[in-house]
Amino acid sequence: MQRAKCKVTFLPHNREIEVNAGESLIRAAMEAGVHINASCGGEGVCGKCRVMLESGTVDGGISERLKREDIDKGYRLACRSQISGDVVIRIPVESGIDASVLNKKYIPRSTAHIWQMNFDELKEQGLFISPVEKKYMELPEPTQHDNVPDVMRMINFLKINHDEHRLVAELPVIRKISDVLRQNNFKVTATLARPVQPGRKTHIINVQPGDTTDRNYAIAADIGTTTVYGQLIDLNSGKGLAEQGEFNGQISYGEDVISRIMYAEKPGGLDKIQEVVVKTINDIIRKIIRRAGVDKEEISTITLAGNTTMTQLLLKINPRYIRRAPYVPTSTIYPPLRAVELGIDLGQHAKALIYPIVSSYVGGDIVAGVMGSGMYRTDELTLFLDIGTNAEIVIGNKDWLACAACSAGPAFEGGGIEFGMRASEGAIEDFSIDPFTYEPMNLTIGNVRPKGICGSGLIIMVATLFEMGVIDNLGKFNRNLNTTRIRERDGIWEYVLAYAPETQIDRDIVLTEPDIDNLIRAKGAIYSGCMTLIEEVGLDVSSLQRIILAGGFGSYVDLEKAMTIGLLPEIDPAKVTYVGNGSLMGARMSTLTNRIRKDVVEVTRKMTNFELSETPSYMDHYVASLFLPHTDMNHFPKVKARLDARRNGDINPQV
Amino acid sequence: MQRAKCKVTFLPHNREIEVNAGESLIRAAMEAGVHINASCGGEGVCGKCRVMLESGTVDGGISERLKREDIDKGYRLACRSQISGDVVIRIPVESGIDASVLNKKYIPRSTAHIWQMNFDELKEQGLFISPVEKKYMELPEPTQHDNVPDVMRMINFLKINHDEHRLVAELPVIRKISDVLRQNNFKVTATLARPVQPGRKTHIINVQPGDTTDRNYAIAADIGTTTVYGQLIDLNSGKGLAEQGEFNGQISYGEDVISRIMYAEKPGGLDKIQEVVVKTINDIIRKIIRRAGVDKEEISTITLAGNTTMTQLLLKINPRYIRRAPYVPTSTIYPPLRAVELGIDLGQHAKALIYPIVSSYVGGDIVAGVMGSGMYRTDELTLFLDIGTNAEIVIGNKDWLACAACSAGPAFEGGGIEFGMRASEGAIEDFSIDPFTYEPMNLTIGNVRPKGICGSGLIIMVATLFEMGVIDNLGKFNRNLNTTRIRERDGIWEYVLAYAPETQIDRDIVLTEPDIDNLIRAKGAIYSGCMTLIEEVGLDVSSLQRIILAGGFGSYVDLEKAMTIGLLPEIDPAKVTYVGNGSLMGARMSTLTNRIRKDVVEVTRKMTNFELSETPSYMDHYVASLFLPHTDMNHFPKVKARLDARRNGDINPQV
Repeated sequence: MQRAKCKVTFLPHNREIEVNAGESLIRAAMEAGVHINASCGGEGVCGKCRVMLESGTVDGGISERLKREDIDKGYRLACRSQISGDVVIRIPVESGIDASVLNKKYIPRSTAHIWQMNFDELKEQGLFISPVEKKYMELPEPTQHDNVPDVMRMINFLKINHDEHRLVAELPVIRKISDVLRQNNFKVTATLARPVQPGRKTHIINVQPGDTTDRNYAIAADIGTTTVYGQLIDLNSGKGLAEQGEFNGQISYGEDVISRIMYAEKPGGLDKIQEVVVKTINDIIRKIIRRAGVDKEEISTITLAGNTTMTQLLLKINPRYIRRAPYVPTSTIYPPLRAVELGIDLGQHAKALIYPIVSSYVGGDIVAGVMGSGMYRTDELTLFLDIGTNAEIVIGNKDWLACAACSAGPAFEGGGIEFGMRASEGAIEDFSIDPFTYEPMNLTIGNVRPKGICGSGLIIMVATLFEMGVIDNLGKFNRNLNTTRIRERDGIWEYVLAYAPETQIDRDIVLTEPDIDNLIRAKGAIYSGCMTLIEEVGLDVSSLQRIILAGGFGSYVDLEKAMTIGLLPEIDPAKVTYVGNGSLMGARMSTLTNRIRKDVVEVTRKMTNFELSETPSYMDHYVASLFLPHTDMNHFPKVKARLDARRNGDINPQV
Repeated sequence: MQRAKCKVTFLPHNREIEVNAGESLIRAAMEAGVHINASCGGEGVCGKCRVMLESGTVDGGISERLKREDIDKGYRLACRSQISGDVVIRIPVESGIDASVLNKKYIPRSTAHIWQMNFDELKEQGLFISPVEKKYMELPEPTQHDNVPDVMRMINFLKINHDEHRLVAELPVIRKISDVLRQNNFKVTATLARPVQPGRKTHIINVQPGDTTDRNYAIAADIGTTTVYGQLIDLNSGKGLAEQGEFNGQISYGEDVISRIMYAEKPGGLDKIQEVVVKTINDIIRKIIRRAGVDKEEISTITLAGNTTMTQLLLKINPRYIRRAPYVPTSTIYPPLRAVELGIDLGQHAKALIYPIVSSYVGGDIVAGVMGSGMYRTDELTLFLDIGTNAEIVIGNKDWLACAACSAGPAFEGGGIEFGMRASEGAIEDFSIDPFTYEPMNLTIGNVRPKGICGSGLIIMVATLFEMGVIDNLGKFNRNLNTTRIRERDGIWEYVLAYAPETQIDRDIVLTEPDIDNLIRAKGAIYSGCMTLIEEVGLDVSSLQRIILAGGFGSYVDLEKAMTIGLLPEIDPAKVTYVGNGSLMGARMSTLTNRIRKDVVEVTRKMTNFELSETPSYMDHYVASLFLPHTDMNHFPKVKARLDARRNGDINPQV
């Protein structure tokens, strides 16, 4: 159901924004760039976000925090008000608005636009070469004068009537064909698996009773260290029919790849840990095929992408040397397999395709992202970035590709941050600050009282504090501001985001200088990785034409803020694309078309891997990146312009 | 140890023959074409084979059947005498020699010469393209500046140092390579499996510690209905290292293919019967590798050939339709497999190659025979004949091949013959008759008292009786001969080969008219099969240039006698080759060279199968073949000439 659009006008800013009915008023304000003091994340506890209805009505917004007469006058709590129609809202002076900010231009939230695979586009571009096709046949029945073997009867028929050549029947087909033919009056459907390399053989991998041409399915899977995703795909339409994510069962044997490798090195560990991830995959398969009403036997192929460790564990390849210098993985390319060889619960005929990897720390998930995003087909110099605890960086275009991995540390997932947390209910995910009173506007996931700060919230916070002059380019608080929110505690300076009674945790939630320092190190690692790679190939960061973000983190990042802190190179936000789970997307692409399956081998070969620890300039770049946004402000001309304008007294620079 | 050659001169024939020391005197006589009455097969029981030493000595030959004074005179029993030096022997008149036979020209035993595969010849002919090669490598160890994945390190090395291209590593190799490399200082041996089709990929199927290039082995196996043979082959030298035959364990589930199929149709039967033959194969493998001191892991490939039923059972393909009109087998060609997929106890990397079949009754054993014998490469019009209960016939040359199968019945294996038996100890295997007294000369396998008659003996017997005029061209005894050996018993005419006291079975061993009739039907089926095939391709039986015999039966057949009864087309015996176990030979050839593996697909496609039961002329040919040798004597000009000469009073025609 499409939600109605409502127009919200904020006074005295006189700023209009269109939002979906049901949106909370305080989120609409944040989106419009209108600051409203709000500490409690939107649960109506702090009572600071009083606004006044000038015309129209909202649902809710009435609270014991408001006096009866104020309610009658039209006051509401912004965080408790849901928009249900066009409305005009006035931000009262006591909610902390200085007239000078009213001229601030409306800048829409600059998250990346989300890339969607388009099956029809694939077809138009000639990229669609289905790896699996089904052919329905009504074969002539054998007679005493025509008793060629069953398999040859089928192959001859396909040759004559379907112009199919170089056919070879696989053993499971040979084993069942005689009965299938005779039990169905020789009316059957053959499943043909096309060769990836033209001129090779087409394999007949299944033969089924009657006409099953409308049932042609595949599975794409992303084997993440934390989460495994599976998607059921209709090969005829290209559509995803069902998707499921489950925690990787290996989590019980260690949270990260290193602890998984250590477990796999124990006697029997590799077998066990392989079994466990296959169980997770099988659970997902069972759920998605049940949900879509698809029979297991109708699935012809599964494509699996994962990082190098996940890939080696899935294939039962000793991962021991991945974590030991000089970090040698076993292979980049894996031969095609039958899914059952890995223990995957599909039919005997189902093929398993494993995404190739590049190095110990640039795995199949990244290759899949490069394939799925189409980065390897573009002329534009593109930066592909998958940010997590480890960040993988790919730079290049259709002519060349360079890649590297770096350890960003867990800051983006809330690790090493005093009140850091994953992006779940109660995490502060958006933030604004009053330029004069330094009062915060906290928005939390779920509009509940805050529990902590998630990664994307942290970036917005640090960027905002930096732009407002609350912290300097080393991430240190300005000790001279007139606010009690900035304070020293046990020798550590911090900013109080919410006081204990406004939180769910009965403790003041603060952002400390060490938190900021951790974020700076994390973003510095990533940015200097990009810089090093670009420099190694003889280019300059300003030559970047496109950024592709992948991974769970990317969808929520405020791009402008990410550039402000120097996490991302400065670029027009419209040139930034978010591809979501790039690994799953690439797996899906390879599942859909042999063109991608063919290209991936060449692309993997083309991806030059740089070991950052072995690249002398990396450390120099890293040190230069441990500033907000960077030592060399020429990399960030817009940020520089804004800071310069502020320094010249412009409280609200329009850059 | 080479045995000494001794010259034996028979008087009054004045015929000389050279034989190995240790040969029995009676066999030397048979070989020289010298008849000596002998009923008891050579055990010295009948005492009829008295001969006299004119000069020289023999070992043994003294018996209580001889009087003291006769021994002193130089009399010996021929059957108990072993030749130990040059000797002159006189056949006494009482041993039944008529002077008129003394002019009979010496005709050597006309068994087929035995074909031996010659590895060097293969190489000279450019036919040797080893399917498996090993390469020893000393790889550079990875460093921080050279940390390409292990598999790529190996592939790159093979590319640069061994000019190897299009390499792909298989999963078992990927799984073990990292450890093998590091446990052996990066000094390892790779096993490369070459593509059968040029331009396809070379698979790296194994990687082993150190230098194992001198250990490169394969197995060839013939899966017979009765017996399974396996041969261990050194791929470097082409030599067979060990061979073993075992009864096919499936015998417990039925003696012939039909009963095996019936068993396989029962619930669980197919699984069971597959398991059983694999157990037989595994037993053989275990024995031959132990005997040769070869490690199981050093075996890279196994080639298996069998008839269509044996092949389908081995591959666990329902054989149900093989025995039901219109006799449709499931497939002619089978994809390459890993041996372990069939349950064969070899390394994970070992490939299994299954010989293709042509039709339900012309199987992989015959295709293997055609490949191994080189029939498909010759210009000469060749007849390939594998005679057993079923006879398979292939006619053709390098340009075309036609094949058929017919049921000969069990006569050649002693079935349906009153005293028929398999070729084992006590079977009469050679026979001669005195042209005047009609007394027999029986030689048995093992020189023991007779138990019965084996197939090759039966052919000699019937041919000899026919040529001597003891039976006519319908196989009926001449009722007017002056001998008590031909008699009527319960309305059936028969010839007494040995009287009860001369036998091991205390019964008269006889050859009956129904026995002869069965033989005539069996040879008629085969000959008319050949005729029909030849006629269907527009040729004439006289155009045959070469005959290749295969199967256990072929080695003992006296070719001249086989032509006399009309089993084989009349041809110069020098043009007849015996290839022994053609199936095993073909399997061995395919194991040794990819050239044969490549050719076999084309050859199988080329082999046009004729269903004799569906060929109208077959019955006419069959009826015409129910004579000795045939209704149309123009097919057998030499037999005709001999018979004509006899009819004109020449007792010993020199044709």
